[in-house]
Amino acid sequence: MTITSFQIAELCGLSRGTVDRALNNRPGISPKTREKILKAAEELGYRPHFLAQSLVKGRTKTLGLVMFDVQNRIFAQLFHSFEAEARKQGFFVYLALSNKDPDLEIEYINNLLDRKVDGIALHSVNKGKEFEAYLHKARVPIVSFGNQISKQFPLVWINDKVAIKEAVSLIQAKGYQHILYVSPPLRYKGKSNIFGPEQRHKGFLEAVKEQAELSYTVITEKDFLAVIGHYLYLPHKKTAILCTSDMYALDVLKFLSSKKILVPEQVGVMGFDNIDTLNYVNPALTTIDYSVDDIGTTLVESLIRKQEGQKIPNLTTISHRIIVRDSI
Amino acid sequence: MTITSFQIAELCGLSRGTVDRALNNRPGISPKTREKILKAAEELGYRPHFLAQSLVKGRTKTLGLVMFDVQNRIFAQLFHSFEAEARKQGFFVYLALSNKDPDLEIEYINNLLDRKVDGIALHSVNKGKEFEAYLHKARVPIVSFGNQISKQFPLVWINDKVAIKEAVSLIQAKGYQHILYVSPPLRYKGKSNIFGPEQRHKGFLEAVKEQAELSYTVITEKDFLAVIGHYLYLPHKKTAILCTSDMYALDVLKFLSSKKILVPEQVGVMGFDNIDTLNYVNPALTTIDYSVDDIGTTLVESLIRKQEGQKIPNLTTISHRIIVRDSI
Repeated sequence: MTITSFQIAELCGLSRGTVDRALNNRPGISPKTREKILKAAEELGYRPHFLAQSLVKGRTKTLGLVMFDVQNRIFAQLFHSFEAEARKQGFFVYLALSNKDPDLEIEYINNLLDRKVDGIALHSVNKGKEFEAYLHKARVPIVSFGNQISKQFPLVWINDKVAIKEAVSLIQAKGYQHILYVSPPLRYKGKSNIFGPEQRHKGFLEAVKEQAELSYTVITEKDFLAVIGHYLYLPHKKTAILCTSDMYALDVLKFLSSKKILVPEQVGVMGFDNIDTLNYVNPALTTIDYSVDDIGTTLVESLIRKQEGQKIPNLTTISHRIIVRDSI
Repeated sequence: MTITSFQIAELCGLSRGTVDRALNNRPGISPKTREKILKAAEELGYRPHFLAQSLVKGRTKTLGLVMFDVQNRIFAQLFHSFEAEARKQGFFVYLALSNKDPDLEIEYINNLLDRKVDGIALHSVNKGKEFEAYLHKARVPIVSFGNQISKQFPLVWINDKVAIKEAVSLIQAKGYQHILYVSPPLRYKGKSNIFGPEQRHKGFLEAVKEQAELSYTVITEKDFLAVIGHYLYLPHKKTAILCTSDMYALDVLKFLSSKKILVPEQVGVMGFDNIDTLNYVNPALTTIDYSVDDIGTTLVESLIRKQEGQKIPNLTTISHRIIVRDSI
């Protein structure tokens, strides 16, 4: 069913060579003939053999973006900025969702490589020597975000450790005595790549160590609300709940509201990411903000520069800042 | 840099024919030799020429999904269900965002066709005879959602007209006398495809015609909050704001809260879509719910069935229901 230059030649009563000349924008035919051919091609719905051309040129002008999902608004926003920058640079984006499944992540990377993408931005759930060796074989630029794969693969992200340390300082300055630290991904330690959550956890442990008057509980359970509920009914100190994602913080706010516990009067809550959903939430959530647009743009730039053979930094740190609102 | 069967043959000290036999899973070589070749191929990071194979087979096991953006949670949810179903059926998904730009939409469709997708699900911003002729030339199954393109292209969506009529009935039953109907996309009438918003608008006009005691104002301005603000300061009847998307309703709730106007005591508000963000919002928003998972799944099934030559219905209507909460 595909229209070939042969059929266009038949329709126009011209040789295939002439038609190919017009279609591939080569010289040697009159403007009038060229126009006739291009018009016939358009009418027939002719599409040049892009796949075949890609095989020859070795470039497809496409980038792959592999991430967990777009349930968390921060990643939907990241996809938007990545796509906008790629489009500006003339690249098409394939978005693939691993759903945090290591096998699926590899299946999707294989799929992108099969389609000869020019580079892959990866929020990796896999890690380890075997995975690194696999990625090295891919022979296309790979840049990571969220979770570092290893020092051999460039990372574009914020400084998670410093960000959490600043959050703890703020909580301490506001007079809180106990922190419930909510980070469910930590339960995957040793099983999948949780570099980002681990950096935040390290920063948290360093910060509470420096502030001896602060006690804390680290909550890694999937059903973190049940654990929080348990703690809040024990006799306790002035408590803040520090969530490593606004998504958790939104669930915490909802849970506390359902229990008629006032924020910040009875318990403080703090998030991480400053997702746009926060615009609609009461009380306004104190959180950590960073430019996810910068991350998307930098990922695209890094992939393109690396593909062109330029050196790119091993680590690009995007700046962050605490947004103080009403919840703490 | 791409590894070919020639290099594998060199490494193994075997003929290229033997290597090709192993790589393409053809008979005629010993299991031991086959294993040796496959191991060498894996070590070298060999990937079969997927693009070349696609050219021969004419199928790529990929589907394209073209929509406006994933800023509205309803479309992020739709993408997730589409992707999950496609994966279950062994298909890879390319997501392309038109950002409501008619030219960009065509550019992306071209791009997907160049990559020989097996079908495209399309939330179209284009419409008209010329666009239809263009799509017919595409020669791959195309199924629409949100906006119908024409009766020649199958649509998977809810019954927008009936849904809005039910919303008006509820508002009337709750004793409201005036409705502010918020539908900014209506301002693109005649410029781009707003089939869905127009269906809702038709349903609204029919409903208010049937209920003579109800007066109404249709707001199509981009800055709909400014218009609402104007109306709320005039002497007025008991008023409900009916938003054609939860996204507008969230902005309305935020605006009213900033003006210290109580919902539903002073003004009623109703949304459309039942996006998951509503879980976190106070007062709980009355809205129209439908299974976006069903839409995603049905789109994938329709594309695959059509590609296999089966007939698919011109219209698949997904059921909806009103969720009564606290805002009206």
